[in-house]
Amino acid sequence: MSDLAAALDIVGSRWALLIVERLLDGPQRYGDLQRDLGAPTNMLATRLRELEAAGVLYRIPLKHNTRAYALTDRGLALRAAIEALGGWAAEKS
Amino acid sequence: MSDLAAALDIVGSRWALLIVERLLDGPQRYGDLQRDLGAPTNMLATRLRELEAAGVLYRIPLKHNTRAYALTDRGLALRAAIEALGGWAAEKS
Repeated sequence: MSDLAAALDIVGSRWALLIVERLLDGPQRYGDLQRDLGAPTNMLATRLRELEAAGVLYRIPLKHNTRAYALTDRGLALRAAIEALGGWAAEKS
Repeated sequence: MSDLAAALDIVGSRWALLIVERLLDGPQRYGDLQRDLGAPTNMLATRLRELEAAGVLYRIPLKHNTRAYALTDRGLALRAAIEALGGWAAEKS
């Protein structure tokens, strides 16, 4: 399997990369992620669990039974790839 | 929609990025792409049509009713993003 295929096994879903992009700005509450991304809640919860298991992000328990998510160093290392993809779309074709 | 979301609308499927990665080495015959990627043939044909419509690659007719595919300049511009994703997976986590 190529390195790219290995990366896509972890962040190959549309929502996964959009979640990581959102967290590049700093930790986010679950409800804020859901609102900002417009992701179906089951989809968001599933992607967050997968990304947590892959060591890309971690969960921060908050008061009142809420939680937030933040990127690990491994997750922060995705910044270059995400900026390159966004930059590609922003280029005039 | 963010630039990243726009990029994922075009190359957000696993196979799309793997096809583009393969074509970064130069034009490839359909049959070689299919063999190298191990993609189901309907999947490959669909992704190729989408990427052609998006201006990422173009079709090169060959003799004997075969065809090859090559990246446009727009497709070649994905190199940085693909290398960044592959590099991320290759890093020790």
